[in-house]
Amino acid sequence: MLRIGIIGAGRIGKVHAESITFHVKNAKVAAMADPFMSEETEKWAKDLGVGKCCKDYHDILNDPSIDAVMICSSTQTHAPISIEAIRAGKHVFCEKPISQDLTQIKEVMEVLATSSVKYQVGFNRRFDHNFRAVRAAITEGKIGDVHIVKITSRDPGSPPIEYVKVSGGMFLDMTIHDFDMVRFLTGSDIEEIYVNAAVLVDPEIGAAGDVDTAIISMKLKNGALAVIDNSRKAEYGYDQRAEVFGSKGQVAVTNDSLSTLVVSNADGVTAEKPLFFFLERYMESFSREMNEFVDAVINDTEVPVTVNDGLQAVLIGVAAAKSVRENRPVKLSEIVF
Amino acid sequence: MLRIGIIGAGRIGKVHAESITFHVKNAKVAAMADPFMSEETEKWAKDLGVGKCCKDYHDILNDPSIDAVMICSSTQTHAPISIEAIRAGKHVFCEKPISQDLTQIKEVMEVLATSSVKYQVGFNRRFDHNFRAVRAAITEGKIGDVHIVKITSRDPGSPPIEYVKVSGGMFLDMTIHDFDMVRFLTGSDIEEIYVNAAVLVDPEIGAAGDVDTAIISMKLKNGALAVIDNSRKAEYGYDQRAEVFGSKGQVAVTNDSLSTLVVSNADGVTAEKPLFFFLERYMESFSREMNEFVDAVINDTEVPVTVNDGLQAVLIGVAAAKSVRENRPVKLSEIVF
Amino acid sequence: MLRIGIIGAGRIGKVHAESITFHVKNAKVAAMADPFMSEETEKWAKDLGVGKCCKDYHDILNDPSIDAVMICSSTQTHAPISIEAIRAGKHVFCEKPISQDLTQIKEVMEVLATSSVKYQVGFNRRFDHNFRAVRAAITEGKIGDVHIVKITSRDPGSPPIEYVKVSGGMFLDMTIHDFDMVRFLTGSDIEEIYVNAAVLVDPEIGAAGDVDTAIISMKLKNGALAVIDNSRKAEYGYDQRAEVFGSKGQVAVTNDSLSTLVVSNADGVTAEKPLFFFLERYMESFSREMNEFVDAVINDTEVPVTVNDGLQAVLIGVAAAKSVRENRPVKLSEIVF
Amino acid sequence: MLRIGIIGAGRIGKVHAESITFHVKNAKVAAMADPFMSEETEKWAKDLGVGKCCKDYHDILNDPSIDAVMICSSTQTHAPISIEAIRAGKHVFCEKPISQDLTQIKEVMEVLATSSVKYQVGFNRRFDHNFRAVRAAITEGKIGDVHIVKITSRDPGSPPIEYVKVSGGMFLDMTIHDFDMVRFLTGSDIEEIYVNAAVLVDPEIGAAGDVDTAIISMKLKNGALAVIDNSRKAEYGYDQRAEVFGSKGQVAVTNDSLSTLVVSNADGVTAEKPLFFFLERYMESFSREMNEFVDAVINDTEVPVTVNDGLQAVLIGVAAAKSVRENRPVKLSEIVF
Repeated sequence: MLRIGIIGAGRIGKVHAESITFHVKNAKVAAMADPFMSEETEKWAKDLGVGKCCKDYHDILNDPSIDAVMICSSTQTHAPISIEAIRAGKHVFCEKPISQDLTQIKEVMEVLATSSVKYQVGFNRRFDHNFRAVRAAITEGKIGDVHIVKITSRDPGSPPIEYVKVSGGMFLDMTIHDFDMVRFLTGSDIEEIYVNAAVLVDPEIGAAGDVDTAIISMKLKNGALAVIDNSRKAEYGYDQRAEVFGSKGQVAVTNDSLSTLVVSNADGVTAEKPLFFFLERYMESFSREMNEFVDAVINDTEVPVTVNDGLQAVLIGVAAAKSVRENRPVKLSEIVF
Repeated sequence: MLRIGIIGAGRIGKVHAESITFHVKNAKVAAMADPFMSEETEKWAKDLGVGKCCKDYHDILNDPSIDAVMICSSTQTHAPISIEAIRAGKHVFCEKPISQDLTQIKEVMEVLATSSVKYQVGFNRRFDHNFRAVRAAITEGKIGDVHIVKITSRDPGSPPIEYVKVSGGMFLDMTIHDFDMVRFLTGSDIEEIYVNAAVLVDPEIGAAGDVDTAIISMKLKNGALAVIDNSRKAEYGYDQRAEVFGSKGQVAVTNDSLSTLVVSNADGVTAEKPLFFFLERYMESFSREMNEFVDAVINDTEVPVTVNDGLQAVLIGVAAAKSVRENRPVKLSEIVF
Repeated sequence: MLRIGIIGAGRIGKVHAESITFHVKNAKVAAMADPFMSEETEKWAKDLGVGKCCKDYHDILNDPSIDAVMICSSTQTHAPISIEAIRAGKHVFCEKPISQDLTQIKEVMEVLATSSVKYQVGFNRRFDHNFRAVRAAITEGKIGDVHIVKITSRDPGSPPIEYVKVSGGMFLDMTIHDFDMVRFLTGSDIEEIYVNAAVLVDPEIGAAGDVDTAIISMKLKNGALAVIDNSRKAEYGYDQRAEVFGSKGQVAVTNDSLSTLVVSNADGVTAEKPLFFFLERYMESFSREMNEFVDAVINDTEVPVTVNDGLQAVLIGVAAAKSVRENRPVKLSEIVF
Repeated sequence: MLRIGIIGAGRIGKVHAESITFHVKNAKVAAMADPFMSEETEKWAKDLGVGKCCKDYHDILNDPSIDAVMICSSTQTHAPISIEAIRAGKHVFCEKPISQDLTQIKEVMEVLATSSVKYQVGFNRRFDHNFRAVRAAITEGKIGDVHIVKITSRDPGSPPIEYVKVSGGMFLDMTIHDFDMVRFLTGSDIEEIYVNAAVLVDPEIGAAGDVDTAIISMKLKNGALAVIDNSRKAEYGYDQRAEVFGSKGQVAVTNDSLSTLVVSNADGVTAEKPLFFFLERYMESFSREMNEFVDAVINDTEVPVTVNDGLQAVLIGVAAAKSVRENRPVKLSEIVF
């Protein structure tokens, strides 16, 4: 039974706590830490069976009964806490991104190189039933060699402008999942990226120096081409699709919805909208990624999403931003790391 | 916190135990009873946090700390245990059917009439996301008055012939869910039924005096018409669909599958098969029906599936069998009760 | 080049004239006859290249240059004109139904038995791309032995009440196509029929002695079961679907629409309604049935829809009406012929 | 009645001849010219009712009874014949592209500026039912302002390598339709283009200096973004889809197929492949574009696809090729014209 301490008791920390408690075998949430730990949260945690709540995450790192930590705190603390946790000999599950600063990721990797703990990054979409099915179809040879990857990823609404300002930009905040998805589906790294970006949803996003709409074109190391299209706001909901085209065919997944209901009447033939947002859409993936993390720790096998996966997605995001600034294709090899 | 004792530790009893433990608020499984309670099951129950395991269900009925029982034992015991449980002052959740013998159902109803306990029947499909969406669309007026109800219900494979022999026949064993669905979707009772049945899947089923294929045509009390088609064996999996046609339009739900994957290649454009069988397809409905049962007990409100719902489905099943025997439409009012 | 005379210049006669002119090889419309032949129609026919227009169809039957006639006149004239045409040595394409009176059909068959002309009945849906694909899938063995046939056939709106009164009833007017479809898809005749019918669309239809909604259950001679559901009015348009379930799988076709357009917005995910009515939906089938008729005449091979096909559909319709009157299953062998 | 002369009796010339004869009102094919006019073609034309066949297209240009010409000859002759025809006072329908040489297009435009004849370019996809439905949904405001356009255009198989060598390259030969489609759907010109192209289908295509796979990213003058993905070979058939995403929603069209047949069996749930290639998929559009051309001539209104539309698509194609050569985004304003 792996004893896990969760650092950060915000929305995603709580999602993981419930997910582990109800759906992850061989693991339990032994402790939660949050500088703003409230009485309400403490009560919620107690009801869930969490042994200990604290404000200082060092209480978790210093607790020898804790085997592993989940880092669900704010983005800029991911890397420093990762380093402390590794040094404390804890296995680490770190929410994405490891850092928006490549130097910090390098430091995490260096510390990790001297340790034997497991380190997994929270690219939960790799564990989603739809995207797993795409990957499986490809590895089973159903479409031959991959030629073209297309990912559609649109949020149901843009985040608060205050969040946008500290988000690190759309590419590192939102598209990072899509960058990882291209690598996951193809098993290939990225060679070069070119981005067409625009501010079409909300001028305030532009005023904050960010973009809200993009078409992102990539050359992969294996010779294939990929394209992602993003929008911060799709009126019909969270649009999460992928298609991969290859020498022998194509595979595609579309959105999930609450039911298969179709109403036919004078207005047309109407199906349900996609599930609203990531908590509705990807809930199942959170327990799956943790189950695999726990298995990797217990069986001492490789984690399914490595620190390098975490690094690559950030590298691509940095190159994407550079491509927008300089309006030209940027090779990943140009990004100093 | 409602303390529930589960009577019967077979497949469905275990499904309910896990479902309550992980997904039902304000309830816990306090005890399980099964005449064949094994060490293995006891260990499984202990790991789940079940307080007590026993062989004699009277140990549950006599335990004053138990608030409610789930009757998951074999069909012929449902009614007698229901009666004992009601007399013991326990709230009852009874798996379908209450009984295949209408006299027994009558006895349950009589005992229940003198008691104030809650009694819910396990028509779990009423809690399924797809069928709920159909019902909601109808009550919201999206299709006007109901004219035609069509239900397709086909199993992925016929049960063992030994099971068929004691099943009470396809109508009471399998179609009973569909009978209830017609009533649930329309809010109307049945007036008359006519059945075209055949043995097309397996001659052994015919030799056992049962049928495996049927088209069941009904007149409803509200004037609408309904039709169910059944097969014991659909090669492509568990086929569970419904459509309802009305004065202003139509609403339909189709099968769920594991993913939205579509493979396009030289063989065609191929989507996934339906989810394999009822555990895969309806898992979510088991926790929903229990959540509503627990709420009804705690808030002393009406249960969502009443003993009369349990009765009506059996009445229809009995009339269906009579229609096959006599090859004529049978009014429900002909069934002596 | 087969020279065809069309008897009846109403809507369907004109559809056939255009269809033959533009889409049928080896045939031309040499003449058209209609007791109400107008100047406008004559001009339209001339523009189309039709050689001769007349009021009396005997002018066509007596014209030795005419090889074949299409009988597109009113229903009650189909049989008498058929008999005259056969006796005049003309090949005959007769719109459905041959007659609503079984005695008349018998007379046509008797005259035909003494002749060598070809006689085809206008069950155009057999030539529709969707239904042909279903039939092909079955004969190719894709679903094994047929167990269940389901046909949905709903009109976009009920006909004028004056038409209803002379239509011969819904079964002989509208369902007759569906009866033929069951036979076409399965290659089997019907053993017994039971009909649940109702007046749910328009009380005036009931006042006229007809029904507007039905579920029609059939036992086939090959042991399979079939069900048709009908409504005179589907708000969303002409609903023309079929599914056939067998020992190895299922095959289904759904409605055609004007485009594959899907609009996703705040209201949902909305596709187009079905094509409006039979002229929009089945236009292509009219030229296909004529091409095959012309081929059968030229090559002296069997026509694809025989006089017996015409008879069987009427027999089923007569049995259906009897089933409604007597509220019991009716064997086709009960129908005196 | 517009009398049309068709110049070029190859595949597309014959398609137009049949299409005009059977489906275009107020027009007839008065003559056909082809330097390789065969006896077989002459017989075919005669059967169709074409008045005159000749080898020299000047016989058509010099025939005062001819009102309009269709230029269906080989690509490099489009512009010179266009100029001669305009000077001869004939209305011109010219197959795409006008020329692969911008100078030639300029000459056509200059001659046209001094004439009052109509000049339409053969971008037939604008007349397709699916793409028309997309355009209509946008102009009706169903998706608000356009943000992202996505076009998928993949051929079922690459053309013979000898054709590839003289084709002018994939962008001017195949993608040119997609370039026009972006302009048609959005009503906007293109500002800048960036292309990721590869040789993944057939190395011989690469050896011939061309590409067979591409992702083409564009900035539009109206601020929207667009992306096209192309492949010369999709195993499952001709893949012709579009989706347009806007401030209020999304609209999409997918492929047409021969029927709506879906087979469900042990292998999955399989629908039909897309219609095979452009003749199957776009046949209807050929008569529609001609109907509108004829209407424009007769009513002296603007043609639906102008010489400028023909020019713009070639300009984009030239910029696309430049983007590949120089691996950078290319503004259309850079293309000297």
